[in-house]
Amino acid sequence: MRELYDIIEDRDRVVLENIPEAALSDTLGRRRGTAQALVYPLSTEEVSAVMRFAWKNRIPVTPRGAGTNLVGSTVPAGGIILDLSRMNRILEVDPDTFTATVEPGVLLKDFQARVESVGLFYPPDPGEKASTLGGNISTNAGGMRAVKYGVTRDYVRGLTVVLANGDVVELGSKNVKDASGLDLKQLIIGSEGTLAVITRCVLRLVGRPEHSLTALVPFAGLHEGIRSVPLILQAGLDPTAVEFVERSVVTLGERFTGLSYPCPQAEAYILLTFDGRREDIEDRVERVRDLVLRHGALDFVPLHDAARAADIWRVRGCLVKAVEAISEQEPVDIVVPIDRISEFVDYVHQIERETGVQMVAFGHAGDGNVHLCVMRGRRSEDDWTRDLCACMKRIYGEAFRLGGLTSGEHGIGLSKRPYYLSHTSDVKLAVQRSVKNALDERHILNDHKSYLA
Amino acid sequence: MRELYDIIEDRDRVVLENIPEAALSDTLGRRRGTAQALVYPLSTEEVSAVMRFAWKNRIPVTPRGAGTNLVGSTVPAGGIILDLSRMNRILEVDPDTFTATVEPGVLLKDFQARVESVGLFYPPDPGEKASTLGGNISTNAGGMRAVKYGVTRDYVRGLTVVLANGDVVELGSKNVKDASGLDLKQLIIGSEGTLAVITRCVLRLVGRPEHSLTALVPFAGLHEGIRSVPLILQAGLDPTAVEFVERSVVTLGERFTGLSYPCPQAEAYILLTFDGRREDIEDRVERVRDLVLRHGALDFVPLHDAARAADIWRVRGCLVKAVEAISEQEPVDIVVPIDRISEFVDYVHQIERETGVQMVAFGHAGDGNVHLCVMRGRRSEDDWTRDLCACMKRIYGEAFRLGGLTSGEHGIGLSKRPYYLSHTSDVKLAVQRSVKNALDERHILNDHKSYLA
Repeated sequence: MRELYDIIEDRDRVVLENIPEAALSDTLGRRRGTAQALVYPLSTEEVSAVMRFAWKNRIPVTPRGAGTNLVGSTVPAGGIILDLSRMNRILEVDPDTFTATVEPGVLLKDFQARVESVGLFYPPDPGEKASTLGGNISTNAGGMRAVKYGVTRDYVRGLTVVLANGDVVELGSKNVKDASGLDLKQLIIGSEGTLAVITRCVLRLVGRPEHSLTALVPFAGLHEGIRSVPLILQAGLDPTAVEFVERSVVTLGERFTGLSYPCPQAEAYILLTFDGRREDIEDRVERVRDLVLRHGALDFVPLHDAARAADIWRVRGCLVKAVEAISEQEPVDIVVPIDRISEFVDYVHQIERETGVQMVAFGHAGDGNVHLCVMRGRRSEDDWTRDLCACMKRIYGEAFRLGGLTSGEHGIGLSKRPYYLSHTSDVKLAVQRSVKNALDERHILNDHKSYLA
Repeated sequence: MRELYDIIEDRDRVVLENIPEAALSDTLGRRRGTAQALVYPLSTEEVSAVMRFAWKNRIPVTPRGAGTNLVGSTVPAGGIILDLSRMNRILEVDPDTFTATVEPGVLLKDFQARVESVGLFYPPDPGEKASTLGGNISTNAGGMRAVKYGVTRDYVRGLTVVLANGDVVELGSKNVKDASGLDLKQLIIGSEGTLAVITRCVLRLVGRPEHSLTALVPFAGLHEGIRSVPLILQAGLDPTAVEFVERSVVTLGERFTGLSYPCPQAEAYILLTFDGRREDIEDRVERVRDLVLRHGALDFVPLHDAARAADIWRVRGCLVKAVEAISEQEPVDIVVPIDRISEFVDYVHQIERETGVQMVAFGHAGDGNVHLCVMRGRRSEDDWTRDLCACMKRIYGEAFRLGGLTSGEHGIGLSKRPYYLSHTSDVKLAVQRSVKNALDERHILNDHKSYLA
């Protein structure tokens, strides 16, 4: 691996000994890989040179950004860790074409702040704001605002990528429409670093909304809450976010934050955000109030006070941490068709009752993306492995029965691999493998991950 | 080919002799291919059986829908024409998940009418409403409403496809979010029938807008008009459509329809549509009026009268036919970054002046998609071939210099192939070819088309 010193200009951007533990894992730190080298390239040319070297010598390469993923995507299997976090320049924000050009290591929060400072807006908003844009693209990250704005895929206009053999390809451009050839960019988005290394991104921006308003809607039960969601969507009331959270879960968040939700007798809450022009929001919010109160809401609480709204979102935003403060947990981000959410959550509760394994459920009601924190509690290692495995099998089984998918936004990585494989047809797996072969016939890029190995 | 009688149940759905001329071409009818068989399958199973037969015998297959394309996409190169137009059932409209499931031969206009009848809306709106949904997906069709709603790709949730070897694969689903494996569906969208045959589509719907309003904005010149577009977009005024058309072109449309545009002294018009709730539209339209009048508009004409608005759109909608009524024409649908539109149209005018070849330019100002009708006039066959070739070379060269692409929505087909190839890197072509190999290693599916042959 000492050849890497010839490829990467600065010695301190090549680590061949004592590779930090954090670079061998993901943010949960439970799975740990091995590697012989960790490099920090600064340019497409350096990435290309590293890949040419790896290709020639058939060395596995694992690209990574900030390593905030939850499914083992950044766990290496020997070889080289290609850490793109230092390629973190915002190269251009172009209001005339509503695009920005960035390196992949730019953090989401830095990018959002920068574009908002010039009156523009980057809508994708996954919970983890310290993730990199390259990582967001690699998992097609979703988040809260997907109901109105879509997911990361919808904001990628162009990518510069380095192929496994070191070749550099420009895919897409600043153009809005594109019917010119196979859209290979789309194949790279969400491919979890298995097909190419992203080194530059042209992202689509929109105008920054003038105003935003959150409303909390308490219901007697989750079914009632979930039933109101299609009504809101059909009525053209254009919510930015539609979240659901049950009382028992809110209580966890309240304890963790010391804050509280109104209407504590409610069994479930729907949390709505609207953005746009102030008068229009007020009008839409009035309509939503009428609609939900006619359809079983216990109350309708618009949060005009920004600090109060922030508190409500803090409780929603802390749920994973609130769980982790009391127990090890396994994160699940199953997605089901939006009309099957309450049926799915009912099934989760049934499993909880039958097995005694607590599973905290909350998520994106507007797009069917249900987050579960499956809690270890005080189980021994053996009991936990056994119980978790049994629960997961049933949970994923039910999700698939309802027409759902393994992952809505986290990706497959290493930890969702068995569930994904169990549900995916042999023909589909074979096609994915031939596409992998087509782009990386030596199977050096993240080949141990998920469905391609 | 007589084996096809064993595959397709009804004899009248297999044509082995006297294949109609229309099936050998596209809607322009200038390029004509050959074929030994024309079949009309009615199911995924029949398509699969035809493909298995073709695969085994290495017979070329050209899938087609209504054949409304303009670039030779449906021109066969021997073998079998797979006409999917009789697979035209709307299988489900599901308001609870905001999806519809359709066969690929459903016509866009029939589908739009059906979903609108139940309060839903399918936004993609290419000019040709008698096109099939399968065809729309195969070219990633765009259209007028792309500014607000995006293109066909943004409305495809799932596809059932038959691979070249006859294998059937389900790609995507009714789920909103999907981070589960390579998104092969995205690769099929826009692939012009070169990778797989689409036999079922799950399409995303939205709520039907309550109201829609068009406004016509005359300017002293195209530059002034185009300059107003980013201002409108940045101000969050959320137009559905932003079209541009110059006076000389309007005159053609006026003569063809007998209708007229107001403010005839204007050199260019921007045509805007807004949709949403009535009060909100009125408010946004007021803001747009202020904005454009402050930035050089000669007037602002909101078309509250639906019949008057329809007339204005009729003139815009008839332009290709208006041209064809007086001359043979070559359609071009170059796309450039939205801030380069007027620079590009200026260049087109320069070429017109230098060569005497008339090129009618109009299009989608909100997304940089410029339609040109390059007019033959009274040129002899030889002169036309020579002049067209010379103009096209310069036009595409300029578009590429400005960062543009060969096609925004028509696709590459046969007729854009040389321009596309001239502008696409060898590495990118090689990757596309390996993806083609991965999905169709016998190269039977539309292999003579565009960039893959």
